[in-house]
Amino acid sequence: MDKGNADILRADGGRGARILGLNERANSTAASRSVNALDRWAAKRVLAGAGTPSISLELWNGEVAAGVSNPATRIRINQRSALFGLLYRTDIHFGDAYSDGRIEVDGDLVEFLENLYLSIRHSIPRDSWRRHVSEWLNRPNANSQATARGNIHHHYDLGNDFYQLWLDERMLYTCAYYSHEAATLEQAQIAKMEHVCRKLELEPGMQVVEAGCGWGALALYMAEHYNVHVTAYNISTEQLAYARARAEAENLGHLVNFVEADYRTMQGPCDRFVSVGMLEHVGLQNFRELGALVKRVLASHGRGLIHSIGRNAPAPNNPWIEQRIFPGSYPPSLSEMAEIFEPHRLSILDVENLRLHYARTCRDWLARFDSHVEAVSSMYDTSFSRAWRLYLAGSVAAFATGSLQLFQVVFTHEENDTVPLTREHLYR
Amino acid sequence: MDKGNADILRADGGRGARILGLNERANSTAASRSVNALDRWAAKRVLAGAGTPSISLELWNGEVAAGVSNPATRIRINQRSALFGLLYRTDIHFGDAYSDGRIEVDGDLVEFLENLYLSIRHSIPRDSWRRHVSEWLNRPNANSQATARGNIHHHYDLGNDFYQLWLDERMLYTCAYYSHEAATLEQAQIAKMEHVCRKLELEPGMQVVEAGCGWGALALYMAEHYNVHVTAYNISTEQLAYARARAEAENLGHLVNFVEADYRTMQGPCDRFVSVGMLEHVGLQNFRELGALVKRVLASHGRGLIHSIGRNAPAPNNPWIEQRIFPGSYPPSLSEMAEIFEPHRLSILDVENLRLHYARTCRDWLARFDSHVEAVSSMYDTSFSRAWRLYLAGSVAAFATGSLQLFQVVFTHEENDTVPLTREHLYR
Repeated sequence: MDKGNADILRADGGRGARILGLNERANSTAASRSVNALDRWAAKRVLAGAGTPSISLELWNGEVAAGVSNPATRIRINQRSALFGLLYRTDIHFGDAYSDGRIEVDGDLVEFLENLYLSIRHSIPRDSWRRHVSEWLNRPNANSQATARGNIHHHYDLGNDFYQLWLDERMLYTCAYYSHEAATLEQAQIAKMEHVCRKLELEPGMQVVEAGCGWGALALYMAEHYNVHVTAYNISTEQLAYARARAEAENLGHLVNFVEADYRTMQGPCDRFVSVGMLEHVGLQNFRELGALVKRVLASHGRGLIHSIGRNAPAPNNPWIEQRIFPGSYPPSLSEMAEIFEPHRLSILDVENLRLHYARTCRDWLARFDSHVEAVSSMYDTSFSRAWRLYLAGSVAAFATGSLQLFQVVFTHEENDTVPLTREHLYR
Repeated sequence: MDKGNADILRADGGRGARILGLNERANSTAASRSVNALDRWAAKRVLAGAGTPSISLELWNGEVAAGVSNPATRIRINQRSALFGLLYRTDIHFGDAYSDGRIEVDGDLVEFLENLYLSIRHSIPRDSWRRHVSEWLNRPNANSQATARGNIHHHYDLGNDFYQLWLDERMLYTCAYYSHEAATLEQAQIAKMEHVCRKLELEPGMQVVEAGCGWGALALYMAEHYNVHVTAYNISTEQLAYARARAEAENLGHLVNFVEADYRTMQGPCDRFVSVGMLEHVGLQNFRELGALVKRVLASHGRGLIHSIGRNAPAPNNPWIEQRIFPGSYPPSLSEMAEIFEPHRLSILDVENLRLHYARTCRDWLARFDSHVEAVSSMYDTSFSRAWRLYLAGSVAAFATGSLQLFQVVFTHEENDTVPLTREHLYR
């Protein structure tokens, strides 16, 4: 936590988020370590609440208090507070207690989370009262320009060194495109940028606006390979410093202008609008305004592409992810995304769902993260690296089980006929 | 009207829909043929109500009462009733008065309608009070199984001879796919069927359910070229008779079962669900039920494709089309189509907008129709052929100006991973 990021795991005001050292366990009294009938009832309740996945729950005294006899995964709960936290609100307390070591997972973390997600999905009726209450409790933040800056800083300014440990060499922190089975993460990220450029049909000299440019890889790729002028917006200071240094090193400064500003300040006109991995942070209540902005800046012959994590149906975000990892984030369904386009009669030309590509991208990230987990722990601390490992494993599981989708949406003005008749050019 | 279809143009209970013979015009009195100040005011009001397109309005006495001096199109209004009908409700009375000859269009009909659509679009604020009233007045029919049968009979049972005059040789009455610029309508319809089959990734022996099979062309194509078993539903008696005869003639009866029944009676399980050009007739209020049905009949590894006319934003259907040509029809926006998928967590994999293909398809239909307009008039009567010419020209204009879209949506169950990683296979 030497980088001032301890607040990430303490945003809940001090509940949870403390690593349980071995000494603490050894020092606990015999009374607190004994298991009583209430503990056993709680363990069974927790398991039932998760739809009874094929796991076992082992308590702090070594007793298996709930679950199947030959489980795929054994969950060890090292403290009573963690057990009752799960009972009170599993969604947030599991992540916190896993991060600080009060809960341990004996088995493959991704496989466990996949089973858990499916088990929960199949056990909860979609229109239940509980669901509505949960949706209300978990409604997304408002994401004004001021809170957006704080939210983005929280996640993206963790330090470029951290992300360099496990992202590809160009630092793309969005879904890759595995055009063939054997593709590496590096190849798949280049293929993703190429796929986006083809969908946009870039031509030399075009003006492109990019909203939310990350470390600048796509802006630089478009400039280098398509000779277009890019104005790229981002509110993450650390990302922009990196992006500008790369632009200078690669002599692309005359084509790419990295602007430290909220996307809402963007100016037109432009021939193309592109946004890869920003919409998740925009917030539903700002979709209509985003559409108005795009409609205004995009020339009459213009075209746009929005690439975003999404869902098959509206649902609250995972509260642990929302509160601990990605404050202000919300993955929309297509009907929710339509609020960007329909009020302004922007015409949707093409939607591609890349869910399986994102499952694989996250798997590749997790594998690299795992090989640097000690470096991460020494940069921050163990609870930080455990939290991020859970987040990445959970992302694999969410995309693999279909809880999350990845939509690429191409659109244009209603009256623009200068669009290709077929999509064949994407695959030449 | 020798086929009992006169009711098509008389469904309004006798208002309008009578061809004005030359004799009637000659016999009208001098008083009724003179133009007064109220007539001139009405003409100006009608033009202003349409957003003042670049046309002129000429009244029954030859006087140009409103419009520009060098118009692209001259509209001649031959009767006072037509003028005041337009004033009262342009949307329905223009079609009726054009059909029965009380209104004539001097100029290219498609070009005039395109200008008119754009002019109206740019003049009416989208959220106006008028619009809300209009939406309410034009809300779609309920489309129970009983009314659906009447609605479908109204349009599709006009007689196969009629449609054979101007459709392609396989009788496909849905958007074609012009994979290259020089494609004929025949080639483009085959390309459409092939495109749909590739999106479905058909494999020999698969069970396919088709909802709304028209004259059976796609069902027969899938059976012949992909060796799949097809159960195809339709409630149009005349279409099914034709389809069954073709299946027998082509020795495909063992693979294709044409069922005269509402899609709501369909049974599963099937490997693929396909529906091309039926959703427009289903009605919004039945979308959720359609989704439930598809979810139930589709095997866990199954995939579906829905091909439908749509819109960029929810809007009332053109009332003249809805009341005179296609009762019960409604082209949905993508957010409205989402009601099929999202409540059942069906996952949208791919959306392709083929708007420009449908503009061209309608242009090809109109050209063929125009070369058989006398045959149509002798099969029915002049007002019928004028009404259909207006409908086809209006369809060209609606797709060309972006008032209508054509969406092909591919979807599957949320947990189905047996989908191709890329769409490259569509273009090999």
